[in-house]
Amino acid sequence: MKKIMIQDMPNHVGETVKLGGWLANKRSSGKIAFLQLRDGSGFVQGVVVKADVPEEVFVTAKGLHQESSLYVVGEVTKDERSAFGFELQVKEIEVIAEANNYPITPKEHGIEFLMDNRHLWLRSRKQHAIMKVRNEIIRATYEFFNDNGFTKVDPPILTGSAPEGTSELFHTKYFDQDAYLSQSGQLYMEAAAMALGKVFSFGPTFRAEKSKTRRHLIEFWMIEPEMAFVEHDESLEVQEQYVSYIVQSVLENCKIELERLGRDTSKLEQIKAPFPRISYDDAIKLLHEKGFDDIEWGEDFGAPHETAIAEHYDKPVFITCYPVGIKPFYMQPHPDRDDVVLCADLIAPEGYGEIIGGSERVHDFELMKQRLREHDLDENAYAWYLDLREQGSVPHSGFGLGLERTVAWITGAEHVRESIPFPRLLNRLYP
Amino acid sequence: MKKIMIQDMPNHVGETVKLGGWLANKRSSGKIAFLQLRDGSGFVQGVVVKADVPEEVFVTAKGLHQESSLYVVGEVTKDERSAFGFELQVKEIEVIAEANNYPITPKEHGIEFLMDNRHLWLRSRKQHAIMKVRNEIIRATYEFFNDNGFTKVDPPILTGSAPEGTSELFHTKYFDQDAYLSQSGQLYMEAAAMALGKVFSFGPTFRAEKSKTRRHLIEFWMIEPEMAFVEHDESLEVQEQYVSYIVQSVLENCKIELERLGRDTSKLEQIKAPFPRISYDDAIKLLHEKGFDDIEWGEDFGAPHETAIAEHYDKPVFITCYPVGIKPFYMQPHPDRDDVVLCADLIAPEGYGEIIGGSERVHDFELMKQRLREHDLDENAYAWYLDLREQGSVPHSGFGLGLERTVAWITGAEHVRESIPFPRLLNRLYP
Ligand SMILES: [Mg+2]
Ligand SMILES: [Mg+2]
Repeated sequence: MKKIMIQDMPNHVGETVKLGGWLANKRSSGKIAFLQLRDGSGFVQGVVVKADVPEEVFVTAKGLHQESSLYVVGEVTKDERSAFGFELQVKEIEVIAEANNYPITPKEHGIEFLMDNRHLWLRSRKQHAIMKVRNEIIRATYEFFNDNGFTKVDPPILTGSAPEGTSELFHTKYFDQDAYLSQSGQLYMEAAAMALGKVFSFGPTFRAEKSKTRRHLIEFWMIEPEMAFVEHDESLEVQEQYVSYIVQSVLENCKIELERLGRDTSKLEQIKAPFPRISYDDAIKLLHEKGFDDIEWGEDFGAPHETAIAEHYDKPVFITCYPVGIKPFYMQPHPDRDDVVLCADLIAPEGYGEIIGGSERVHDFELMKQRLREHDLDENAYAWYLDLREQGSVPHSGFGLGLERTVAWITGAEHVRESIPFPRLLNRLYP
Repeated sequence: MKKIMIQDMPNHVGETVKLGGWLANKRSSGKIAFLQLRDGSGFVQGVVVKADVPEEVFVTAKGLHQESSLYVVGEVTKDERSAFGFELQVKEIEVIAEANNYPITPKEHGIEFLMDNRHLWLRSRKQHAIMKVRNEIIRATYEFFNDNGFTKVDPPILTGSAPEGTSELFHTKYFDQDAYLSQSGQLYMEAAAMALGKVFSFGPTFRAEKSKTRRHLIEFWMIEPEMAFVEHDESLEVQEQYVSYIVQSVLENCKIELERLGRDTSKLEQIKAPFPRISYDDAIKLLHEKGFDDIEWGEDFGAPHETAIAEHYDKPVFITCYPVGIKPFYMQPHPDRDDVVLCADLIAPEGYGEIIGGSERVHDFELMKQRLREHDLDENAYAWYLDLREQGSVPHSGFGLGLERTVAWITGAEHVRESIPFPRLLNRLYP
């Protein structure tokens, strides 16, 4: 008997196969039982017709509990009515282990209850679909950067200095030294770009921030590309190509999941490069025209401002050239103005906020030293970073994409906590 | 003028192109200068013939310092004598920024000096080659698991409990709670496998271990696959397929790098599944036959034992079924014996030691509870993990591959510190 996974069923129509899986749900009458089966690769309906199977098989089917594990043997048939397109005509059932009062039932549960049971909640259709989309975004990310000549580089998580202050950093003792968990691998990625040209990272980052919004996680994953010999405008092109690539990959490879999530795919189909650009100056004007009186030139946007700007477009929009005063020390000045820098944030549509922050980096040695002084940063803590400017410095740019916000946007999840397998939130370190 | 990368030169033979890069090294006479150029994508020789270029170009070429950054314009030609196969007939040189007493010269340097300058050392030919092989191993890892129906899952780094003791864990304050950095995502990956079937992780792990061997890092990257409905023997097959796949991918896609590293590729060409298996019992006998009198049945192997066993084979070897007393609580007992468990370590050839540890996991709820009691582990801390056994438990297996040891083995690096971009060692948290 051929043991297959649900996702492979389309290749076995008319064959009798064996599946290992769990009972997601069931309904039955006196003559027929419909088993919603899942095996991690997908969901499929198993049909048990009383008249077609031995008595004990039908009795077993009717007595199955939600999330009991089982092997089923049956024939793969087409089923035009389901999104998956196939179903299983069940002939045999072997129960592996009964589930015992599975806590997550088809009824509604409160969010804290679901989060306490995150290890089980991941089995549900919606959470499964979100994790599959997350996986596709990761897969497409590697494909995009590999195909475009980037080298994957893993920057360190533990770092020995916290020159910008420790207030939002997690601290640990590294034997006799103090160490901090990385908020961003960018500075290391700049070093890597000088060695490997075009590089990207994909790893966890940590912010000990007491935020409790639907856009914030304490532990989240970032993709941070950095590119030698690439200036601001060229970096924006890479960004829009990359974001288009992951959205189109999800549309192509996660049709069933997007349908299960009820995602409006027409909105995603429009996400193709190029993306619109609006300068910070014009964004402030736009907000004033829209009646916002709580922001002036020189101040950073809040979530409502970003949402209002994004509503103006049906694609993600780059807000470019922010005031130097509200951006980090390492951003390259605008060539014609000394009050703004060569940077851009990419704001997702539909209120999902900033998904990318990026900039060209200061590459001049003297300017970098001046910036460190202006920001009261210790030159010694940045000795190796300054070396990059002293030893054959070149123009370079990079950006960071927040994975969970991107997953939330593409899946239409209301909160980033559903876009990561085991979320870490202000009051949530379990399971 | 077409701006290209060195790796693309094979597609531009006979064309005049522009490259951005750095001077890795040079030698010159009165009539000709040979510039070793690098741009991160590769290394190439640039030839400047005094008679063929304006006077100032030749003067510039002769005056260039190591690691100065520059744009060069020249014609791509074939060069049978170099491993790369191409060179650049330089016509123009534009210096972007001079390097200032670049500290890493072609002479020998001490290891601590090189590690202090890791951000620059990455630019050298050997380190560049190792990072490219690391990248190819990562790329091939994603390809292998994606092609085989696995979903990438990112387990959390910060965890709230340390039920097995905190001695080798990094601690941090998570707001008002205590948290620890993950040593392994395995338990979470088991939860994920029950939701997604076949899953794999790729992320950093942390061991606050005071080891100072050539095989140990404080911060290292692991790939941890976990598979529902997969038993011990089937897991070994996945492991040997996976390791073969990455070795063959490196052989195919990193020819230049392996040559630059002086790697004996004939040894790598043999790395094809299946791999030999030896039971722990027989391994102990083999060691006694080889004259080892410092190990008895029931004790764990040290590095010299692993090396002696590995020398017996020209492929990686699985040592299977270790005594229950020296393995973690979660390993499934052998069906016919209660003194050994269904596990295997995969030992690399050539003295590189263990690169994989794996096992079938206990899936019986009562046995798992008994194991927790026997190991004095707190059932409450494992509440969610026990749920996996109570709610439709299924046989499952998984393993963890240590990336840096695998990179060290495939590249022939003497020490794992060269197989990660920014190593974290007992006395090393900089840069
Ligand atoms: Mg912003
Ligand atoms: Mg071992």
